[in-house]
Amino acid sequence: MAGDSGMPVSRTIGILGGTGPQGRGLAYRFAAAGLAVVIGSRKAGKAETAAEELSAQAGARVSGASNEDCARRSDVVLVVVPFEGHGELLLSLREQLADKVVVDCVNPMGFDKKGPFSLSVAEGSAAEQARELLPDSTVTAAFHHLSAVLLTDPAVEVIDSDVLVLGDDREATDEVQALASAIPGVRGVYGGRLRNAGQVEALTANLIALNRRYKVHAGIRVTDLPVAVTDGM
Amino acid sequence: MAGDSGMPVSRTIGILGGTGPQGRGLAYRFAAAGLAVVIGSRKAGKAETAAEELSAQAGARVSGASNEDCARRSDVVLVVVPFEGHGELLLSLREQLADKVVVDCVNPMGFDKKGPFSLSVAEGSAAEQARELLPDSTVTAAFHHLSAVLLTDPAVEVIDSDVLVLGDDREATDEVQALASAIPGVRGVYGGRLRNAGQVEALTANLIALNRRYKVHAGIRVTDLPVAVTDGM
Repeated sequence: MAGDSGMPVSRTIGILGGTGPQGRGLAYRFAAAGLAVVIGSRKAGKAETAAEELSAQAGARVSGASNEDCARRSDVVLVVVPFEGHGELLLSLREQLADKVVVDCVNPMGFDKKGPFSLSVAEGSAAEQARELLPDSTVTAAFHHLSAVLLTDPAVEVIDSDVLVLGDDREATDEVQALASAIPGVRGVYGGRLRNAGQVEALTANLIALNRRYKVHAGIRVTDLPVAVTDGM
Repeated sequence: MAGDSGMPVSRTIGILGGTGPQGRGLAYRFAAAGLAVVIGSRKAGKAETAAEELSAQAGARVSGASNEDCARRSDVVLVVVPFEGHGELLLSLREQLADKVVVDCVNPMGFDKKGPFSLSVAEGSAAEQARELLPDSTVTAAFHHLSAVLLTDPAVEVIDSDVLVLGDDREATDEVQALASAIPGVRGVYGGRLRNAGQVEALTANLIALNRRYKVHAGIRVTDLPVAVTDGM
């Protein structure tokens, strides 16, 4: 479900923490869809090396940079880092992220011998933490439930999953929905205001438990929507 | 995905709060699938009247009783009451629910002018509250995301949604999965341990927000599962 406006995704997409499996997978899919992508990492050299690999894989140019430069050069910035370093990183990039659309993709989660469980976040969710730390940015939340295994596998041409997009700014959620829908098979679906992001982040723990039980890479589809799944934008 | 054992659902299904829209809808679907159903209400007379209507609608016998008698007479007991009265009701039925499978279906939620939002529950979730109050029962959680509008509409023959079933007892979650799969179109899918029930309950707020945006009655499907959707058991 691309944004209701049918808005094209023509802006530069930054991915903080873009060298991890989830970040690489999203970068690969966005680049393959023809979008301009910059991946960021704490070390610019690491990001540049990963970007070269991704460019070859996607047959399209991916740039690598420090997280700071990635934030500065991008219009829409995905945050794909472990929850531990989430607050500290965003606080350090407040200025670079001002006036931009920030897409928080973080799932605060722990593991013990009984499996995955969701972590309680004082602000309610990672996304609401981001909103508190980035008063000059437009914060949304999305891309919580896509399997990194599937995203990074070039043999997987279509991802069978919707992406729930949360946020309080309609223009921003429309743009992020359009971004999600750029991945073949994926629909970006409005999922509510940012205050309801916590359960969407936490649901990843359920999907991991389910993946272990059934030995799958599960995604989520919303039923009864008026828009069919397409093979991309 | 019926229980891995292919277990038939041959036991009596009780529904506490069975005269509300969600409870009536589930009772109708279970009765239509040939299961023995007792609906409970605070007032036995009210439950009996609703049960007569449901029997006529489903073409199968539904019984009505006080919540107390409903709990006593049933083997598997669904809790479909507003969160406000949830703890008090369960505490009062501890004895009647002992040694039974309890299926908590409650979504702790509030509404304000910005729409739906999930309520914080001290125990983590309604289901975990039930587990604390019912130490002699086997508590599971399920049936959070099925639309009451669709469940209660006899013109809707197939419900396009999975049901996530949570719990720590494999035999119980298998039975509840089989129960969910008795509804045409529905698959009962394992969704994790009870400690991960909170986000599944809370996700109902997102579905309501999404229903309002798209004017639909959304459900959730899990993708990549090895079992296809069938038209019932």
